[in-house]
Amino acid sequence: MINSEIKQVMADENQNESIQKMIFSEGLVLESGQKLSHLEIAYQTYGKLSTTKDNAILICHALTGDQYVASVNPLSKKSGWWSRMVGPDLPIDTNKYFIICSNVLGSCMGTTGPRSMRLDQQTMGYWGVDFPTITIGDMVNAQKLLIDHFQINQLFAVIGGSMGGMQALQWAVSYPDRVYAVIPIATSSFHSAQNIAFNEVGRQAIFSDPDWRNGNYWRYGVIPSRGLAVARMMAHITYLSEDALNRKFGRRLQETMMGSSSLILGEMFQVESYLHYQGSNFVRRFDANSYVTITRAMDWFDLSQNYNGDLVKAFSHVQSRFCVISFSSDWLFPTSRSRAIVKALNRVGANVSFVEIVSDKGHDAFLLDEPDLDLVISGFLAGIKRQRQLKNNAS
Amino acid sequence: MINSEIKQVMADENQNESIQKMIFSEGLVLESGQKLSHLEIAYQTYGKLSTTKDNAILICHALTGDQYVASVNPLSKKSGWWSRMVGPDLPIDTNKYFIICSNVLGSCMGTTGPRSMRLDQQTMGYWGVDFPTITIGDMVNAQKLLIDHFQINQLFAVIGGSMGGMQALQWAVSYPDRVYAVIPIATSSFHSAQNIAFNEVGRQAIFSDPDWRNGNYWRYGVIPSRGLAVARMMAHITYLSEDALNRKFGRRLQETMMGSSSLILGEMFQVESYLHYQGSNFVRRFDANSYVTITRAMDWFDLSQNYNGDLVKAFSHVQSRFCVISFSSDWLFPTSRSRAIVKALNRVGANVSFVEIVSDKGHDAFLLDEPDLDLVISGFLAGIKRQRQLKNNAS
Repeated sequence: MINSEIKQVMADENQNESIQKMIFSEGLVLESGQKLSHLEIAYQTYGKLSTTKDNAILICHALTGDQYVASVNPLSKKSGWWSRMVGPDLPIDTNKYFIICSNVLGSCMGTTGPRSMRLDQQTMGYWGVDFPTITIGDMVNAQKLLIDHFQINQLFAVIGGSMGGMQALQWAVSYPDRVYAVIPIATSSFHSAQNIAFNEVGRQAIFSDPDWRNGNYWRYGVIPSRGLAVARMMAHITYLSEDALNRKFGRRLQETMMGSSSLILGEMFQVESYLHYQGSNFVRRFDANSYVTITRAMDWFDLSQNYNGDLVKAFSHVQSRFCVISFSSDWLFPTSRSRAIVKALNRVGANVSFVEIVSDKGHDAFLLDEPDLDLVISGFLAGIKRQRQLKNNAS
Repeated sequence: MINSEIKQVMADENQNESIQKMIFSEGLVLESGQKLSHLEIAYQTYGKLSTTKDNAILICHALTGDQYVASVNPLSKKSGWWSRMVGPDLPIDTNKYFIICSNVLGSCMGTTGPRSMRLDQQTMGYWGVDFPTITIGDMVNAQKLLIDHFQINQLFAVIGGSMGGMQALQWAVSYPDRVYAVIPIATSSFHSAQNIAFNEVGRQAIFSDPDWRNGNYWRYGVIPSRGLAVARMMAHITYLSEDALNRKFGRRLQETMMGSSSLILGEMFQVESYLHYQGSNFVRRFDANSYVTITRAMDWFDLSQNYNGDLVKAFSHVQSRFCVISFSSDWLFPTSRSRAIVKALNRVGANVSFVEIVSDKGHDAFLLDEPDLDLVISGFLAGIKRQRQLKNNAS
């Protein structure tokens, strides 16, 4: 067993806050063939693992998310990003389930990524721009080490939205017998040309910032904050629907700017002020090299790539039950992408439910107050739990 | 008459190319109240003005367009941006019509804008970032000076796509008796929160470039080329549909990159290379201050603004015949915006046709090979010409 190679730590990071971590000194071989000689995975758990270890749910976070799915992030002091969904008596009920959420490989909240110290060289320093190219598959392989550590034979469910949904799908394909059920939300089996294009413009905004310094900004004590803010602002537009933006802001002006004559450079419309806030807030919490690394992993994502472009073949060995969820106003990963997943799963005779939730909130709907989403997730979990019990009782 | 104040020039610009220009030494009072003490309008004409001056068509260009609608741009050496539409025996037939296309106020192809010399101060210099805030109404008012100079009592038609369509609509509202017919294509009666958001991110990319130098880059002999390229790349995504991007590029890789291990910073997908080309090409031909000025004018655009937000009231005095055209895959100015225009025009009993052209080419479809667009425009022009003749014969 790999247990011997693992140290569980409560690391005192810079911020004097405890971060729960698992250290895998054997490292991880990446899909590119390159080897990370040292791997740390930061994670959080909620609820209690049953004695038979049959109640574990892995929640996978999105591009800029973190492991604090239902508890306060000690750095940002913000409450958990899905605390409306995960907790006692909530749709993903911590009275019933043991929830695991780990920071993805390549990120910057404790798991090994570009902001981690490089331990494979004599010269001390961060990975920075030299952090290897990773894939969604690598993220999942890292998570699997964590699940192995917990000696969980089969996850009851893997749940994730957006890039988290990509990981959920990858779990079903990479480890078919390790996942009882999968809930991919607002996601896609591949990154489209438009998805790639938006990511690339964000990266170019970062690279254009003189403080990027070829990715070695950390050596100079600076961060490419302007470029990263522009990248975030642009991405944020893609997370919201046009209707949501119209409803929230319309063409309303910032009150402070009314009557001002400095129209060209100042903030004017509320939507602009909102984007500026999103941008400046983001640069305080997220690493630019992580942003580049993870957006690249998303761009690379195409489940059918190793199967001659045939998604049906990619799904040919899945054993999980699926509940695929999309939102009607999501234009980043529109419902048509979910339908393509469902169609391919149907072709292999998989057990699959599909729900398109009518919402005007756009891609971000999965993070927001959408009562229908709560009902679908709690209902699906209850249903498959009952099915599994019936099956176990019968056998 | 204002003729006495006008000098027609064939100005020898830096590039040793002749640019056709009209100089209005009386200047122009802007909607903001500020006065431009000196106004130059660069324009091109095609075809021959009839003796009764009843065959003039004004074509209004889009954000980054120019007056070279059907002839080679002497700076970029590119053929006219609508040369497939405007010319002898083409849908907008220069054998029949006298075509006028002028560079919009605030642009950088000869008409007064941020890149023009400022003549109202003792110190010599360019307008640059001090160029006043302008509106779509100001652009139209400048065009009207040109039309007055030609002593054209009534334009047979005003035609424009995107921001050109905004100008066409503004003409119908500002000068109802001066326009016989209006063809607004792929446009909107207002800029939405999402439209504003994309423009603002583009501007922030420009402002983030250290070579922006608070808009005074020209003083330092630099241009904010990286920021401007990012702005253009992002805008370019919004001009194309997801389907068009998938068809054109899909997930295909650049051949030169196959097998390369420099995946993080290099170009990889064809769509990325395409965007880089669009970005770097753009900065050679367009001025950053003009980009900021004109995107601001678009953001300000809301035809209903002076009418308590009531578009019907805005249209209450229109006298023109309208042919409103949208494209099914345009998500920047979707068909719903055209429908809203048509609905308001119907409410005031205006003569209005509406066509949604089924196309997967997105917003840019109006510039591309869309035979249906050719048929609609040539058919509408022929129809209203016949109507006018019948009316004139009857009276």
